[in-house]
Amino acid sequence: MTDLSRTAANLDLADPLAGFRDRFRLREGLIYLDGNSLGALPRATPGRMADAVAREWGEGLITSWLGAEWSTAPRRIGDKIARLLGARPGEVIVADSTSINIFKALTAALSLRPERSVILSEKTNFPTDVYMMQGIEAFSGGRVRSVTVAPDAVLDALDENVAVLLLTQVHYKSGLVRDMAEVTRRAQQAGALVVWDLSHSAGAIPVDLNGANADFAIGCGYKFLNGGPGAPAYLFAAARHHGAMPVLSGWFGHARPFDFDEDYAPAPGIERFLCGTPQVLGLTALECGVDLMLEADMAEVRRKSLRLGELFVEAMAPLCRDHGFALASPADADRRGSQVAYSHPQGYAMIQALKELDVVADFRAPDVLRFGLTPLYLRYADVVETVARLETVCRTRAWDKPAYRERAAVT
Amino acid sequence: MTDLSRTAANLDLADPLAGFRDRFRLREGLIYLDGNSLGALPRATPGRMADAVAREWGEGLITSWLGAEWSTAPRRIGDKIARLLGARPGEVIVADSTSINIFKALTAALSLRPERSVILSEKTNFPTDVYMMQGIEAFSGGRVRSVTVAPDAVLDALDENVAVLLLTQVHYKSGLVRDMAEVTRRAQQAGALVVWDLSHSAGAIPVDLNGANADFAIGCGYKFLNGGPGAPAYLFAAARHHGAMPVLSGWFGHARPFDFDEDYAPAPGIERFLCGTPQVLGLTALECGVDLMLEADMAEVRRKSLRLGELFVEAMAPLCRDHGFALASPADADRRGSQVAYSHPQGYAMIQALKELDVVADFRAPDVLRFGLTPLYLRYADVVETVARLETVCRTRAWDKPAYRERAAVT
Repeated sequence: MTDLSRTAANLDLADPLAGFRDRFRLREGLIYLDGNSLGALPRATPGRMADAVAREWGEGLITSWLGAEWSTAPRRIGDKIARLLGARPGEVIVADSTSINIFKALTAALSLRPERSVILSEKTNFPTDVYMMQGIEAFSGGRVRSVTVAPDAVLDALDENVAVLLLTQVHYKSGLVRDMAEVTRRAQQAGALVVWDLSHSAGAIPVDLNGANADFAIGCGYKFLNGGPGAPAYLFAAARHHGAMPVLSGWFGHARPFDFDEDYAPAPGIERFLCGTPQVLGLTALECGVDLMLEADMAEVRRKSLRLGELFVEAMAPLCRDHGFALASPADADRRGSQVAYSHPQGYAMIQALKELDVVADFRAPDVLRFGLTPLYLRYADVVETVARLETVCRTRAWDKPAYRERAAVT
Repeated sequence: MTDLSRTAANLDLADPLAGFRDRFRLREGLIYLDGNSLGALPRATPGRMADAVAREWGEGLITSWLGAEWSTAPRRIGDKIARLLGARPGEVIVADSTSINIFKALTAALSLRPERSVILSEKTNFPTDVYMMQGIEAFSGGRVRSVTVAPDAVLDALDENVAVLLLTQVHYKSGLVRDMAEVTRRAQQAGALVVWDLSHSAGAIPVDLNGANADFAIGCGYKFLNGGPGAPAYLFAAARHHGAMPVLSGWFGHARPFDFDEDYAPAPGIERFLCGTPQVLGLTALECGVDLMLEADMAEVRRKSLRLGELFVEAMAPLCRDHGFALASPADADRRGSQVAYSHPQGYAMIQALKELDVVADFRAPDVLRFGLTPLYLRYADVVETVARLETVCRTRAWDKPAYRERAAVT
């Protein structure tokens, strides 16, 4: 047993979150470091889904919209997620996809700054964030401009034309954490609103939207919230912005959807950010993941996440020295979300080779190996074992296979 | 046994679709006439869902995007739905909600008619269709106008300003069927494009989009396709329109989503109408419903639907005479979709009273009782029995309860 293995074993023994691992179904032997892409399956989910399908849908049929509280699920689950985000009840709603919610939040923000024309973001933001900006620009007929700048040039680009700044709090690739309160303050000082993408934040780090006086936020249900593949996304709008108009004015966002009025009248509260009929099965699975996350103390989750990351970085030191890895995440643990990333020219092939050793992590172009740290089901020993297997991959050149030379990654 | 009961029994004995009823889970005794709002649960769905949750998600985790073919599900299921719509493979995609797809289809159509400004529809169209038009108008800064006219004034309103006409093929309340080929021809002659809402058509009546030279269509997965509550919706774009630009430019609509390019480049085919990450669990349930529907001969489905409707109307004749019901659907069966509707001042209370007799139908304001006819699981005997129970409700004044005086309907 190496020193690091012993350290890891001791940390696992003392881990106050250790019991959560049994609340997930995880295949024996698998080390899963991709929970920041698709979270693992909570043990409670299959039974809950079976009940929703057989009893709520099969038996309750149409009456389940009220009887099984399907119609209030977007708000009910939103209120639960709000507790993870430092938001108040009635400020978060669950609906649609992250991309669609970006559109709603941006257009709502634009409606509050009609005299300004620019949506600002950083060039290296997650692609869909920037793509949605570009779609708005294209449709606006010249009224809206989508502008992206280098990551460190964002604050300086906040001029009197910027209506809204779209930023991701935890960068999907490097894991860099933005200072939400400071950026929000600076943007608001410049007269702009901010939309925060929390896809890699919720359930990963403590978030305090109201503490930062945030305007809007959106995020993903299938990563650290363990909501299942393609889970519905969420949207936060500060109570003071509930008069804003999202463009996607579907019937579930109407003040009285079942009056079947001829004219759209937005719901007074967060429900105006709903659009079409809620995706009940996806909501059901998401609620299981959120309920489980709410049982954990987020401060404890963050503590373990930081320690997992430090251990990872410590274990990787020899590989950086001998095998050409370079840390692609901030060296300062406090500035990292719940992941560590390394760059290596053979990154893609190495991720494939690790998969054959039952370690699942992921690759992000051009050369980044991304290791997601999910404190609810990852053990310290898994981190040390991952690095040991990566060392084996390097030492045996297991990555050097023709099959790995062609690149094809998935979210 | 009445004459009508005998007729119904004989029709059930000779029904070539009778075997399909056993392919659904339906509670013994329940008569379900609301399959046009939420379709029943196919027997195959619970097992398939359990497998998707436990094996594909729980065991396959992130690798299931390729390994379980999650990433191609929107196109694969779209190709299946295309067979119900008279469309070709590659012309239909499954994603998002009906409301969101209306937005995509309308904005794509607008991109093809930049010199025109009007979106036209009928006043009594399903509310979300009109609401989405109003949202586009509000965001367009004066470039787009949302115009609704009386149902019979639509064709006359097709002037040189109309970019796109949005119509529902089968009216959600009356069941009136529009002549898709003729309306499309007239609209195209006037230089406009047409978006057809097929929510009450797909799986209910034979649809021939390409035969009608249709431009765009959208529709709902949870009605006659039995895809489950809030199932993903679908979008058809004729191959000739695959250069059109939907505004909702999310990463799954990108030509190479996993290249993480900085700029949006739409996929060349129908995939450009995707936006965010596909809702895998909803797609899985929908596919079960679609697969089952594909086993049925749509001509046979229509034949049975017409005969069910005729039987219903025949059985209702004495109630129209004695209890004040009036047919709110077209009298000509060929002009009705797969439902019959009656108006009655006590419509809401009667639907509630029927529910206590284990007949589920629905109410649409101000006074319409709507009975959905789903040939795969409805028996002729159910129709006769429904009218018998409605007669009981009228005769015993079972509808006259204080609890029924307040109206609260759900989709």
